[in-house]
Amino acid sequence: MGQEDGFKTQKRISTVSGNVLLPTTTSNGGIGGRRQQQRGRQIKKTFNNVKMTILCGFVTILVLRGTIGINFGTSNADTINQNLIEETNRLLSEIRSDSDPTDINEPPDSDLDLNMTYTLGPKIISWDKQRSTWLTQNQEFPSFVNGKAKVLLLTGSPPKPCDNPIGDHYLLKSVKNKIDYCRIHGIEIVYNMAHLDKELAGYWAKLPMIRRLMLSHPEIEWIWWMDSDALFTDMVFEIPLVRYENHNLVIHGYPDLLFDQKSWIALNTGSFLFRNCQWSLDLLDAWAPMGPKGPIREEAGKILTANLKGRPAFEADDQSALIYLLLSQKEKWMEKVYVENQYYLHGFWEGLVDKYEEMIEKYHPGLGDERWPFITHFVGCKPCGSYADYAVERCLKSMERAFNFADNQVLKLYGFGHRGLLSPKIKRIRNETTFPLKFVNRFDIRRRTTDKSV
Amino acid sequence: MGQEDGFKTQKRISTVSGNVLLPTTTSNGGIGGRRQQQRGRQIKKTFNNVKMTILCGFVTILVLRGTIGINFGTSNADTINQNLIEETNRLLSEIRSDSDPTDINEPPDSDLDLNMTYTLGPKIISWDKQRSTWLTQNQEFPSFVNGKAKVLLLTGSPPKPCDNPIGDHYLLKSVKNKIDYCRIHGIEIVYNMAHLDKELAGYWAKLPMIRRLMLSHPEIEWIWWMDSDALFTDMVFEIPLVRYENHNLVIHGYPDLLFDQKSWIALNTGSFLFRNCQWSLDLLDAWAPMGPKGPIREEAGKILTANLKGRPAFEADDQSALIYLLLSQKEKWMEKVYVENQYYLHGFWEGLVDKYEEMIEKYHPGLGDERWPFITHFVGCKPCGSYADYAVERCLKSMERAFNFADNQVLKLYGFGHRGLLSPKIKRIRNETTFPLKFVNRFDIRRRTTDKSV
Repeated sequence: MGQEDGFKTQKRISTVSGNVLLPTTTSNGGIGGRRQQQRGRQIKKTFNNVKMTILCGFVTILVLRGTIGINFGTSNADTINQNLIEETNRLLSEIRSDSDPTDINEPPDSDLDLNMTYTLGPKIISWDKQRSTWLTQNQEFPSFVNGKAKVLLLTGSPPKPCDNPIGDHYLLKSVKNKIDYCRIHGIEIVYNMAHLDKELAGYWAKLPMIRRLMLSHPEIEWIWWMDSDALFTDMVFEIPLVRYENHNLVIHGYPDLLFDQKSWIALNTGSFLFRNCQWSLDLLDAWAPMGPKGPIREEAGKILTANLKGRPAFEADDQSALIYLLLSQKEKWMEKVYVENQYYLHGFWEGLVDKYEEMIEKYHPGLGDERWPFITHFVGCKPCGSYADYAVERCLKSMERAFNFADNQVLKLYGFGHRGLLSPKIKRIRNETTFPLKFVNRFDIRRRTTDKSV
Repeated sequence: MGQEDGFKTQKRISTVSGNVLLPTTTSNGGIGGRRQQQRGRQIKKTFNNVKMTILCGFVTILVLRGTIGINFGTSNADTINQNLIEETNRLLSEIRSDSDPTDINEPPDSDLDLNMTYTLGPKIISWDKQRSTWLTQNQEFPSFVNGKAKVLLLTGSPPKPCDNPIGDHYLLKSVKNKIDYCRIHGIEIVYNMAHLDKELAGYWAKLPMIRRLMLSHPEIEWIWWMDSDALFTDMVFEIPLVRYENHNLVIHGYPDLLFDQKSWIALNTGSFLFRNCQWSLDLLDAWAPMGPKGPIREEAGKILTANLKGRPAFEADDQSALIYLLLSQKEKWMEKVYVENQYYLHGFWEGLVDKYEEMIEKYHPGLGDERWPFITHFVGCKPCGSYADYAVERCLKSMERAFNFADNQVLKLYGFGHRGLLSPKIKRIRNETTFPLKFVNRFDIRRRTTDKSV
């Protein structure tokens, strides 16, 4: 367009029929002619500008089409899939919003009075007596069977679908893992998906449920809480309950971290056992008050951060609160607390998951410790949520490995094993036979544990 | 541009210094002059065309930017979320593709020889004797406990995450539902997530697993297969095993649909029991040959469609194959098959889910029939897949209702119930007490079933 200087344009413009009489240039220029030439140039420029404007407008629409939501044709399958996902999401929102007409007449829950200490329920003071009387009167529901105390494993997850779609799949695998261990060892499972107390939601939700199960299952001697992100990785190992005859709480941790360093990770509440007794009810009652969500939990969090080494600033969590309680009231509680670290009642995943192949090579199930960890606990991975403390890839692959490492121990009885620790596919590890019971005698873990070879 | 006809352009083109000597028009035209004018026009046209080409190219890039993957800025949270989802999907694909370096040296599985009848394993002919000898020698693993036969519930789902994200959430709820029922009734659970035989994938996968469990668990008297889309909705009802003393297969269905109409839905293989015995091994062997995927399953499907009333055209499924087998070899098998319909060992969901409120009002758990269905089976809903036979909304809401209807019966012992059949939230249904054991005596289902009130 800068080249127009080098061009002189002389136009002859025919009259357009109708309304407009456009100037006609003369062949030899002159002032009148130059004016006509300029007008012609102007018109052409205008026309070009209009063309450019239209084109730019079109470009703008194209750029913005995503935002406006105009699609220019997708494949049928994509459309069906998209519709399915949108409909599912809409339903999920409905379910999550929990709009139930019967709620209309429910009175709103009253605000927690900050001057009152929160309680899990009415104070029970004679639980040991009530329970032993009941056991005497109901001998068809004994608390010991073949010399073994009855244990109930409590685990769970929130009632709503995970924010991250893969989360529910790993919750499913996690519960299958627990079903396998508990079947082999005769342990009952309760999978909790309800909030018994809306004040104690999140990681605190286990407290009211533990209490509720104690009071509803007098035949159960031990309630064992286990996080949904903790997997059994030693299918043979059994908790040596005999060791805890004089204790009521068994929890993984390190005494020096606890008493000397007052560290916020001195104990781990991802896996612990409570004896079903008065002492446990009392400890739960003492533990709960930091839990109610809102200002109480916020303020409690500050106290915990101020008093526990290494604790970041966030609302009170059950683990820090328990550590703080046991430190503050050491004489009252610690005599009956067994701080266990001879085996991995809780095994932090990061130092373990890369060693499974080495373990397979050198050791065998039944050890429960660093050679063959009883439980591998994926602290911080949070597959159900959106904000993990570790890289998603590392977490998911590690959980897959731990799951298959454990599953191999279960499948061994059936003559199968995973093709690799990352593989969902399995392969035969021995030939079939017309006399399968010899393998049952060799490989059924239950036969090994009744031999008390651990 | 069509308007150029109305304009005659006369150009004066100055010489460009250097290489090119461009024509100069004379003021009065002439042939030489016209030629110069034409060239001038051409150059201008060319220039305009170049401008348009550049602009169109730019437009093309903008249109295609989505495909090339160039984004022009999204919000931070969206980006994080998007990254999380993309990373998860990438990992899922990796897991699904099952790329394991240890597979490199595995020989490829040989193709099935279509002339050979497929078998589940080496033919076992003395299973009853093997098993009874084993039970005699291993009395610490009895097959009857307190007069009740030992039952193992087998269920499962594919090893990989569901195509539809909500699918894994409902699989999780389904297994929790089964854990609850089985805990109350002393039934063991095996949750299978592996394909023991790659030929028998999909709905056929249960056959090799049933056989495998029989042979590996001689202490188990009954293996009970239950689909993942079937939920317990009567937590009190117990299968009246005494009724089946002389039978080896218990399956829900209707004799007239089976023998008179030869209907493809005369029986339902979503929930059935096999006694652990030689007869069952033989039936499984006779059942399996239509299962191997590929040409065998396709051809078998045609036979089944041709012979069973109402069957659409698709590959052979286990249910149709069993019906066809029992019809074709009626004298051989039917004597030991109990076609049960006095209670809902399988209850088709559509006629049941809208009546739960009415049931709650009029009836009580323990009936197991149309008044209070034992099992509600969501045939056709397929929450794990993409292509359901029923509307997604209807299915998901109905499953939610069935789950909560059942969960209420479990929570009753703990003093809670769902706020509504569509609500994941719960509320207290009775006040707390300092003497909780009176409620245990009243509400623990196990105490009712030991009274054999069913």
